[in-house]
Amino acid sequence: MNDQFLKACRMQETDYTPVWIMRQAGRYLQEYRDIQKTADFLTVCKTPDLTVDVTLQPVRILDVDAAILFSDILTPVEKMGMKLQFIKGKGPVLDPPVTSMQAVERLGVPDPEDDLPFVLESIRILRGELEGKVPLIGFCGAPFTLACYMIEGETSKDYSGAKRLMFQAPHIFTALMEKITETISVYADAQIRAGVQAVQFFDTWAGLLSRKDYSRYALPYIKKAISYVKKKHPKVPVIYYINGSATILDLMQKAGSTVIGLDWRHDLDTAWQQLGNKVAVQGNLDPCTLFLPQDELKKRVRDILKKAGGQPGHIFNLGHGILPATPRENAIALVEMVHKMSRKKGA
Amino acid sequence: MNDQFLKACRMQETDYTPVWIMRQAGRYLQEYRDIQKTADFLTVCKTPDLTVDVTLQPVRILDVDAAILFSDILTPVEKMGMKLQFIKGKGPVLDPPVTSMQAVERLGVPDPEDDLPFVLESIRILRGELEGKVPLIGFCGAPFTLACYMIEGETSKDYSGAKRLMFQAPHIFTALMEKITETISVYADAQIRAGVQAVQFFDTWAGLLSRKDYSRYALPYIKKAISYVKKKHPKVPVIYYINGSATILDLMQKAGSTVIGLDWRHDLDTAWQQLGNKVAVQGNLDPCTLFLPQDELKKRVRDILKKAGGQPGHIFNLGHGILPATPRENAIALVEMVHKMSRKKGA
Repeated sequence: MNDQFLKACRMQETDYTPVWIMRQAGRYLQEYRDIQKTADFLTVCKTPDLTVDVTLQPVRILDVDAAILFSDILTPVEKMGMKLQFIKGKGPVLDPPVTSMQAVERLGVPDPEDDLPFVLESIRILRGELEGKVPLIGFCGAPFTLACYMIEGETSKDYSGAKRLMFQAPHIFTALMEKITETISVYADAQIRAGVQAVQFFDTWAGLLSRKDYSRYALPYIKKAISYVKKKHPKVPVIYYINGSATILDLMQKAGSTVIGLDWRHDLDTAWQQLGNKVAVQGNLDPCTLFLPQDELKKRVRDILKKAGGQPGHIFNLGHGILPATPRENAIALVEMVHKMSRKKGA
Repeated sequence: MNDQFLKACRMQETDYTPVWIMRQAGRYLQEYRDIQKTADFLTVCKTPDLTVDVTLQPVRILDVDAAILFSDILTPVEKMGMKLQFIKGKGPVLDPPVTSMQAVERLGVPDPEDDLPFVLESIRILRGELEGKVPLIGFCGAPFTLACYMIEGETSKDYSGAKRLMFQAPHIFTALMEKITETISVYADAQIRAGVQAVQFFDTWAGLLSRKDYSRYALPYIKKAISYVKKKHPKVPVIYYINGSATILDLMQKAGSTVIGLDWRHDLDTAWQQLGNKVAVQGNLDPCTLFLPQDELKKRVRDILKKAGGQPGHIFNLGHGILPATPRENAIALVEMVHKMSRKKGA
């Protein structure tokens, strides 16, 4: 099997820099859009045959060094007891928004085997399909980011409604965070037991918090979830990603992940240095640069590889999810560039 | 006149820390909502009597140390030749979006005296009304942020459409940036000649750029506009604000403003140190903390004042605009807290 990704997570020497792309199974691929013509997003998430198909597409088309389970961070939230819909042009809608202690108390902690069997089945099938190819990554939303969606009920530019509840009614907010933490802890554990070989926690919106508030309202919960997973599966790499982590990078590191996912605003060398080079890093090309002509894109890729300096422990990725309008050929070229430019002589 | 704000901009000693609030004339005030019952947003911007009324409301109600002209960063954009509407629940819509060289060429550079006389008249009236009270701040959008709106035609969570044009057709993007830069340069100059005593450039979305792209596609233009203003009015303070500037703070300083506006993710002491304490700073309370109970809010205010360390050159403000749902009494309390806690003994 191609174990370059897992080796990089563990900061071991690799033959070249492994690369995968956040949201690599997505609308920028015609093959994905073809499947979406016959089944909507949630149906694809809940039908193992379709989940497997779209998960494998980028492995085949892009030659990435890892597959990531096709799913959504809100899948377990639906099973906590919220009504989940994806509305065209609007995105996810969770109904009704959680704003009271009673609403928090009504939420359950889903049992993955009973409530999310389609996820675990997809993972089992995928491991079979991927045997001898590349590792499979599982994922969850991190507590703060899930709480943002659950309180707002939809996407928001600043999640000020969620932060308002956090400030006005911290007992409700923290009760919700506890319940989410329990949910994602057992969910990540179940994904690993079903076969994923690494797990990524997406904390997309935690970058909206000041240092004080991240320390108080986000860090303790994600740290608890990561500890839970690491205790049960000490050898399984955990990746922790925040969008806009510049002012909280040192705090983020305290969550204890194996790999830190960096957004594109960081200079990778500066950020890695700030982390004391003690942890692997993943990132961090601006997804919008995939619109550049390929000769310009190549310079950007080279720049990031140069900043990583060939040190063990760099996984190439975008700094945020790939955009639906991305030219497919540039995504393919990106993976090829990373492989070619980073290959060690003689390897 | 209360000149504490202007003194702080110039890093001179003040009797206490001056404070004003971004979007201080806004929906969180009943008095503002009353006016909006009879006139929509753009009408208020274009009718000097109404503009003057809402501009003065926070001076009277909150006791802030500066007034800021009530207007919108898109007002001059409409006069460049785009159709501007504010649609409820959606925000500003500019039609049609600028995506071709022809569209850029069709745009004009408005003459403020001819095309924006209502702004200049409002400023002249306000200076009379404010005489002996507090200084008046004018403002403009910075080129990158205005380009984002003009290319997207509406608000966006990541302005990836604007960045796409920037990467795919840099000649169109930079031609647009040149035209915007000229527009805001003469517009800021006209505002100052009409009477504003300081001017703020809002570059809200520049924090979406990597260091490389900020340096290439945003900094040269805002720097040019600031130079233009400073050359003509060397004594008028210029404030430059970006939301999410953590990774580009040193570059942002190169734009040459008198004051750097900091968002709430920065620790004010760390950021000021990064700036070499050579420039005044404005900020940086998280707008959401205005939902805290007042005793908790007080701790946040004290924390920022402590980080500023009583050094000359700190203007207290939020780290982003005040939210419409903010409790009015907390905004009033905030200003009082800043004044009380920062007042020098004997002053």
